Amino acid sequence: MPTKKKDVKRIDTTIQTLGPAKIPSNMPYCRFMEDSAATQVNFAEDLDDGASASQTLKLELAGPRKNTYFDPSKTKCAIVTCGGLCPGINDVIRAIVMEAHHNYNVAATLGIRYGLQGFIPKYGHPIEELTPRSVSDIHMFGGTILGSSRGPQPADEIVDALERMNISVLFLIGGDGTMQAAASLLKEIQDRNLKISVIGIPKTIDNDINFIYQSFGFDTAVEASTIAINCAHTEATGAYNGIGMVKLMGRESGFIAAQASLALKVVNFVLVPEAPFTLEGEGGLLEGLERRLADRGHAVIVVAEGAGQDISKTSGETDASGNPILGDICTVLRREIKAHFERKGIEHTLKFIDPSYIIRSVPANANDRVYCGFLGQHAVHAAMSGKTGMVISKMRGHFIHLPLHLVTGQRRRINIGSDYWRSVLESTGQFLYMSSCFG
Amino acid sequence: MPTKKKDVKRIDTTIQTLGPAKIPSNMPYCRFMEDSAATQVNFAEDLDDGASASQTLKLELAGPRKNTYFDPSKTKCAIVTCGGLCPGINDVIRAIVMEAHHNYNVAATLGIRYGLQGFIPKYGHPIEELTPRSVSDIHMFGGTILGSSRGPQPADEIVDALERMNISVLFLIGGDGTMQAAASLLKEIQDRNLKISVIGIPKTIDNDINFIYQSFGFDTAVEASTIAINCAHTEATGAYNGIGMVKLMGRESGFIAAQASLALKVVNFVLVPEAPFTLEGEGGLLEGLERRLADRGHAVIVVAEGAGQDISKTSGETDASGNPILGDICTVLRREIKAHFERKGIEHTLKFIDPSYIIRSVPANANDRVYCGFLGQHAVHAAMSGKTGMVISKMRGHFIHLPLHLVTGQRRRINIGSDYWRSVLESTGQFLYMSSCFG
Amino acid sequence: MPTKKKDVKRIDTTIQTLGPAKIPSNMPYCRFMEDSAATQVNFAEDLDDGASASQTLKLELAGPRKNTYFDPSKTKCAIVTCGGLCPGINDVIRAIVMEAHHNYNVAATLGIRYGLQGFIPKYGHPIEELTPRSVSDIHMFGGTILGSSRGPQPADEIVDALERMNISVLFLIGGDGTMQAAASLLKEIQDRNLKISVIGIPKTIDNDINFIYQSFGFDTAVEASTIAINCAHTEATGAYNGIGMVKLMGRESGFIAAQASLALKVVNFVLVPEAPFTLEGEGGLLEGLERRLADRGHAVIVVAEGAGQDISKTSGETDASGNPILGDICTVLRREIKAHFERKGIEHTLKFIDPSYIIRSVPANANDRVYCGFLGQHAVHAAMSGKTGMVISKMRGHFIHLPLHLVTGQRRRINIGSDYWRSVLESTGQFLYMSSCFG
Amino acid sequence: MPTKKKDVKRIDTTIQTLGPAKIPSNMPYCRFMEDSAATQVNFAEDLDDGASASQTLKLELAGPRKNTYFDPSKTKCAIVTCGGLCPGINDVIRAIVMEAHHNYNVAATLGIRYGLQGFIPKYGHPIEELTPRSVSDIHMFGGTILGSSRGPQPADEIVDALERMNISVLFLIGGDGTMQAAASLLKEIQDRNLKISVIGIPKTIDNDINFIYQSFGFDTAVEASTIAINCAHTEATGAYNGIGMVKLMGRESGFIAAQASLALKVVNFVLVPEAPFTLEGEGGLLEGLERRLADRGHAVIVVAEGAGQDISKTSGETDASGNPILGDICTVLRREIKAHFERKGIEHTLKFIDPSYIIRSVPANANDRVYCGFLGQHAVHAAMSGKTGMVISKMRGHFIHLPLHLVTGQRRRINIGSDYWRSVLESTGQFLYMSSCFG
Repeated sequence: MPTKKKDVKRIDTTIQTLGPAKIPSNMPYCRFMEDSAATQVNFAEDLDDGASASQTLKLELAGPRKNTYFDPSKTKCAIVTCGGLCPGINDVIRAIVMEAHHNYNVAATLGIRYGLQGFIPKYGHPIEELTPRSVSDIHMFGGTILGSSRGPQPADEIVDALERMNISVLFLIGGDGTMQAAASLLKEIQDRNLKISVIGIPKTIDNDINFIYQSFGFDTAVEASTIAINCAHTEATGAYNGIGMVKLMGRESGFIAAQASLALKVVNFVLVPEAPFTLEGEGGLLEGLERRLADRGHAVIVVAEGAGQDISKTSGETDASGNPILGDICTVLRREIKAHFERKGIEHTLKFIDPSYIIRSVPANANDRVYCGFLGQHAVHAAMSGKTGMVISKMRGHFIHLPLHLVTGQRRRINIGSDYWRSVLESTGQFLYMSSCFG
Repeated sequence: MPTKKKDVKRIDTTIQTLGPAKIPSNMPYCRFMEDSAATQVNFAEDLDDGASASQTLKLELAGPRKNTYFDPSKTKCAIVTCGGLCPGINDVIRAIVMEAHHNYNVAATLGIRYGLQGFIPKYGHPIEELTPRSVSDIHMFGGTILGSSRGPQPADEIVDALERMNISVLFLIGGDGTMQAAASLLKEIQDRNLKISVIGIPKTIDNDINFIYQSFGFDTAVEASTIAINCAHTEATGAYNGIGMVKLMGRESGFIAAQASLALKVVNFVLVPEAPFTLEGEGGLLEGLERRLADRGHAVIVVAEGAGQDISKTSGETDASGNPILGDICTVLRREIKAHFERKGIEHTLKFIDPSYIIRSVPANANDRVYCGFLGQHAVHAAMSGKTGMVISKMRGHFIHLPLHLVTGQRRRINIGSDYWRSVLESTGQFLYMSSCFG
Repeated sequence: MPTKKKDVKRIDTTIQTLGPAKIPSNMPYCRFMEDSAATQVNFAEDLDDGASASQTLKLELAGPRKNTYFDPSKTKCAIVTCGGLCPGINDVIRAIVMEAHHNYNVAATLGIRYGLQGFIPKYGHPIEELTPRSVSDIHMFGGTILGSSRGPQPADEIVDALERMNISVLFLIGGDGTMQAAASLLKEIQDRNLKISVIGIPKTIDNDINFIYQSFGFDTAVEASTIAINCAHTEATGAYNGIGMVKLMGRESGFIAAQASLALKVVNFVLVPEAPFTLEGEGGLLEGLERRLADRGHAVIVVAEGAGQDISKTSGETDASGNPILGDICTVLRREIKAHFERKGIEHTLKFIDPSYIIRSVPANANDRVYCGFLGQHAVHAAMSGKTGMVISKMRGHFIHLPLHLVTGQRRRINIGSDYWRSVLESTGQFLYMSSCFG
Repeated sequence: MPTKKKDVKRIDTTIQTLGPAKIPSNMPYCRFMEDSAATQVNFAEDLDDGASASQTLKLELAGPRKNTYFDPSKTKCAIVTCGGLCPGINDVIRAIVMEAHHNYNVAATLGIRYGLQGFIPKYGHPIEELTPRSVSDIHMFGGTILGSSRGPQPADEIVDALERMNISVLFLIGGDGTMQAAASLLKEIQDRNLKISVIGIPKTIDNDINFIYQSFGFDTAVEASTIAINCAHTEATGAYNGIGMVKLMGRESGFIAAQASLALKVVNFVLVPEAPFTLEGEGGLLEGLERRLADRGHAVIVVAEGAGQDISKTSGETDASGNPILGDICTVLRREIKAHFERKGIEHTLKFIDPSYIIRSVPANANDRVYCGFLGQHAVHAAMSGKTGMVISKMRGHFIHLPLHLVTGQRRRINIGSDYWRSVLESTGQFLYMSSCFG
């Protein structure tokens, strides 16, 4: 299976700094990380895109440095959370506050309410100080105690607010758009020649941020998804020719659907945006489903919401201007499955489950909590040492610093030529019924 | 608040038998129940319908009798599960099989596949023998290992099958329709003068079967619902003027919505079929919601699927003949809330969660497992002693026998004049915002 | 099976009041309960002690009254939590605070820290005001936010504190000892001719309080216990002749052990304080266990900590004065089982699990949350209407008022002649292996 | 902090084969792995032992090969599970059976009962064939459906059994001892010149197998541990000067204790075998605990069972010969803490929780299920291509083949000079109270 050749462009992994870190760290105990500490990864191998030209990246390791750039006693930090919810946001907030307070003794950490809106005076959202006491239990709750909002706000107004509040470090927890906003802020800050560090902690329920192998909250979301899938399986086996269908998040990348299918071995068909498929005809879903029911009497289908865009597009509905409306794929599938089996006179039952926000609003599980704790700690380490314009990531077991520009712009997607996707197909066995899933 | 006067008709609680139980029980250990043992309940008080005339019912207590009607060594039992899934069905199946095998040593217990269809030859579903070994772990799974189906099948064909398989006892696990089918079978059996006992174990996820205070699986369904509600609350607080809406099962009775609201104290509005409400104007939901958001910045709404039928009916959509289409209440509410706040220029975010089958397909929790275990044991005790045309129920802490006719025909609904509903309103505080909820 | 004859003493169910309730309730919405509303229960039948003489008790129903005794705007309430933890304490605290604030608008509700110590100046524990905001999320946590302590404190010092703080209503959440302390406080209050209402909410993880059918938190504790039992079963089946043993709370009453065994059908032997058993010889546990292993290759034993006191007493260990030391029953059982099988040359593996505080420190499940919500609401209703010297209980589905004296002094225990215990034995099947369990 | 210098011995990563793989794979769909595919890891960096000399290892990548060595239609596989339980064993069994059956169509997969005993005729354990149907639901259960046992069995008798049963591939799921047994079997097989592949899937609840970064089941065990820790925290905060102590598995390596402390941020002291500490005096646990209680009023201590061996050794107890008895560290700690605070006249409460087997007997969580699925698939791929004397491992995100000799002999332990341990200390903050924890 050939994969498309990518342009080989030199990837720059240099991390910016506000200036040399000269103040000896007052951390009470520490095995410090050498500032130049780095790990090397082979881009081609480690990023699973087998066909592109290989290059070796040197990535700066995260961790506490012997010297800080900021004087902790005069440093005010701010945290803002943007975009959709994700398990573990509160864990990251808590880790930042605890690290900044206990290990660096910063002057204060402020919580910005409702995303970037919180910086804009006209919204009137209050700013609140976050203390170890106020955040001590927040990891028991899903969501974000700060509230969130979508969409950008003017970079100049935000930087005005940072200046007004005398903030030295801004932590942004958010997705692709937020990381782009962070880049705009960085530019505005540099234009004003301010000494404000901008650190991102990338967040995406879909696990689709570039260079982030597994985003925080993903493991929890997968675990939560398995409950819905298990129920779909129970419903499927509870009826003659029972079909259980589960819709999971994933507009452009089907990681949740794929991983949940690996975790719960009852899935027979998993449909993701990366792997186009056909409905009709030999090798299509309908005929495959029919054969599966004939063989086993039930079937479970997991659908990432962005799967089969070409199919939902051509569903015949048009808008006022006569343009095809992008339908909901599950609505299309349910209608077509029903029609197919009625046409064939085959009794069947289809139960549809859309857990929707349930998989992203639950509290983080133990694994994600550990992960979020590290992200928060390392974000503070990076900021205090004067790094800026970067995000915290984990790659091949190491926490690293990545420049902002690497994580924006392009989405991470399942490589359907990879071992990972092969394992998913091995696990579902769908290739036996539906050859179109090979892409 | 006045409640409607009910007709006072004499309620007959007599249990039918196939004949005198004369064979000494071979149960290895038992404290037997006197055959005449009964408890008395005051119908008016105990069924929470304060206004109806009072009568005292004498109800036969469930439990093992000293003598059996059937000779265990020659007795074949059959179990059939019908209608929608519900947590605990497998627990009841398991309890019946274990009790019949270990304590009565019956010849065999057969599992009928896919509901009443399983009796009808044309469907070709296999019959399988259920043994302690084959059912030992099934309580770990939701759903029914036998499969289920909806709808009636010809009583004569079913009784033909019972005769053909030489079945002495039929256990039916199902809802209102199944209990009506049981009544038809009973009549056919009596017409043929057969000695077959028909025992029902009423099942309803909505908790709406008459004379059954709390149906098995209800507690589990409520527990599962609280996860979705908690997520809705997390989403609501995670956005400025965030509204979380959860749709829960309950076509004619809102018990799940009401009980889940009591269990998770974050619900601000609970809408059930029993309590009509208005959308527009003073005391309506929209204005109440607006005031709630103004006060607290977020709101959680729990909606039983059958709530507000008059509102969804008058939503303006009509079918080809111009008749109003009964809309989905949550679709209507989401549209109207959006329109209302847009009209008012109030920023808001609404997140909708429909856990649908998730709340009914999960395995039973500990409480329901205990309950289902008793239901299964008592069903076998009743059958072996020759009782027929009855169901097992629990009332005021006692397991009792109820004639089939009492549990069919009429649905149990929340009495909105009751202490129970008052407590729900106290818990949500919705009366402060929405006077129309008083019904 | 004969049960011991109890003395038939007239049971007085009269509830004391501080005086006539004359102030119209300011509850914003309410269907009020008639002050004289009562339910009747047959003591003999409803309390499951079949042998005692029967008497019918008239029990006052809980609920809001049309008139209050206290003027809410001048009423300060206090809550104190005593004794060991139990799931749901925070739910009761929350419900009291919410009800007192939202529905009665009382002046304040104070939280007393660390049990009755919190009233005694020398301990120096701070008093904190409990507000809807401060308690809004506490139901997500196990334990008690107020802290607890064991043991009595001088009644006069406590009443001094109540006077000093101008408290009108004291809610005590605690066990048998706490209810006795409540009675002492009541006496001291009456001696001083004060108008302070004393309301108890009985708490016991062992479910052993008289006249309380199922204490709050019990259902959650049982659910938590099933996890440990399931693990014991997994360990037992994972080894040849594997034995899994689980120790559960229950010093004098084995309700948790019994109920958890009913909930998780994998238990083969359940040992409770109420049902003496023998270790050695025919019908003893050792021989029964040996036969069970021979039959099935594994066994699960659930032991209430107070089971087999005669056995652990006679374990041969003596203290300095030569008196027998009351051993830990599980230590004795593990030693004796090991010795028995080694003597017989039978390979076996025994895995012991003591979940200890895990079953009582978890947050309440949905069922207990609903229950605790009602307890808190009804406690406030009772107090505001001027009732005193009473506790809230639930009997046969009704929330009722019980005089303090009824719930103290005597423990509730499993009636081993009851249907309930018979069902436990049916469920474990232990009578097949161990005839001594019949008591 | 200096770490000990290790001998630099050349590490041989060559994988043995039974012979060239020449039979074209009949896998229905596959993106095959080049046989020579390998990843490179830097031993020094990737194994976190900063001080040892660096060498780059070339590690063979796991995955399906284009050609198989064995003819599937004539290949019988066997699976044996040894040693203590661990979450995910059933998942690995299931994955092996499914992969061998569906993707290779092997003749049969046999399940060996109760560990290596299952091969030895005198034990008389039956062999059972494992089919997709018989294993389809086993991942829902903890433990191992095959049963397990400890200890070695004669290699020649085992190989006799393999020959007798005509087994071509033996999968061993077990710990350090089992991998040593696998090495002995390999030798015996080679001495007899047999063509039997021996593949190990390393299992350890303590996460202490060399070259295995995270063993399967570890994540689940950590998650289960957090429940106990949370309860300890609830108990600690529920009493004045409350101390919650939790004992967790980990005889020689404290990974579970460390990771669970990272996951649940309520732990104040974590004690592991790798980091010696003192009880008495400045910087000792007792004084640190006293200061912590003075500061915060409660404390949570997590203890790996192998922590403080020097302390428990010197507890004063001696055996018959006068040698010091290695005490249980938690018994010692509880006694010393009690004595310390009584001596100082400081009121305190200590609650001890030992979840013991609960953390290892639960079913695997989603993350471990995915992991176990891959382990099983890759084990089959390796075996079918003729590899032998190896185990499946995951390193830096890649599944790889490791020679058996690398994973035996030496235990993996926490490097207390590592970033990982620093993060644990940052998270607990124990260095503020107890300087002796630096090792």
